[in-house]
Amino acid sequence: MVIMGIDPGLGTTGWAIINGTGDRPELIAYGAIRTRPNEELPDRLLAICTRVGEVLGEHLPDEVVIEDVFLARDTKAALALGQARGAAMLGAALKSIPVRSYTALQVKQSVTGNGHATKDQVAFMVKQLFRLQEAPEPADCADAAAIALCHMHRCRQTVPIG
Amino acid sequence: MVIMGIDPGLGTTGWAIINGTGDRPELIAYGAIRTRPNEELPDRLLAICTRVGEVLGEHLPDEVVIEDVFLARDTKAALALGQARGAAMLGAALKSIPVRSYTALQVKQSVTGNGHATKDQVAFMVKQLFRLQEAPEPADCADAAAIALCHMHRCRQTVPIG
Repeated sequence: MVIMGIDPGLGTTGWAIINGTGDRPELIAYGAIRTRPNEELPDRLLAICTRVGEVLGEHLPDEVVIEDVFLARDTKAALALGQARGAAMLGAALKSIPVRSYTALQVKQSVTGNGHATKDQVAFMVKQLFRLQEAPEPADCADAAAIALCHMHRCRQTVPIG
Repeated sequence: MVIMGIDPGLGTTGWAIINGTGDRPELIAYGAIRTRPNEELPDRLLAICTRVGEVLGEHLPDEVVIEDVFLARDTKAALALGQARGAAMLGAALKSIPVRSYTALQVKQSVTGNGHATKDQVAFMVKQLFRLQEAPEPADCADAAAIALCHMHRCRQTVPIG
């Protein structure tokens, strides 16, 4: 199965496409959608939604997985993040691709074995699991790959054995 | 000028179309976009985005005006509201309609003369200004009409005199 992971943010949204079909997961592509604070908000949201749609069109993933956010610095940050997350989800919903979500705790637990791992530990494990020379940069891309890996692990756990 | 006002919310998004061309503003249409908590979040956001697009297609407003939110009960509420607000804005951005925003304080000040007016006072003034028998229900629709009125007032203030 091909999975698109998304780490949403108004300024930087990281995305990663992984293929979890074979024995070892492969990182197919990743990138960051950047918008500038001096752009109008509707234009920033449109850029996120449109680019997510383009990546879906290029890589045709079976599912989109996005980080589920419960914590934010304050309500202002939560509103900005909510808008960006909504725009990324709509990019998938407009293409009728199913969207799942996991909390940061679930992602960290799944990828590093520790729900309270640091960003560096997550990036290190992404590098190891995909056998890369360097972890994807910026960190939002490594996080997006980690979210996709988390979903792959969860899906495999639910396959009946024997 | 024809203006669409939007009061965004994940459960209920109020909208109103007003015509501010003549001497007295006219309320052309209004409604509420409702989504259920048991629906998947991407489906709820898609419903908001799609319905905003449909209303734009029916009434062809020159501009969309949406409430700018700084305050929310807590970060969880702010995330939900941000996602809904993003979906409504994207409904307009996908149709290339300009989106403006005003704070609740600006809207209340413009419509009632008091930036700290209650919801009932806003609804009362909407009823009076549009010469209605009753204020639009639910209150989200009256709020949406008030946001559109606020923009109409602001636009008129900027017209040079003489």
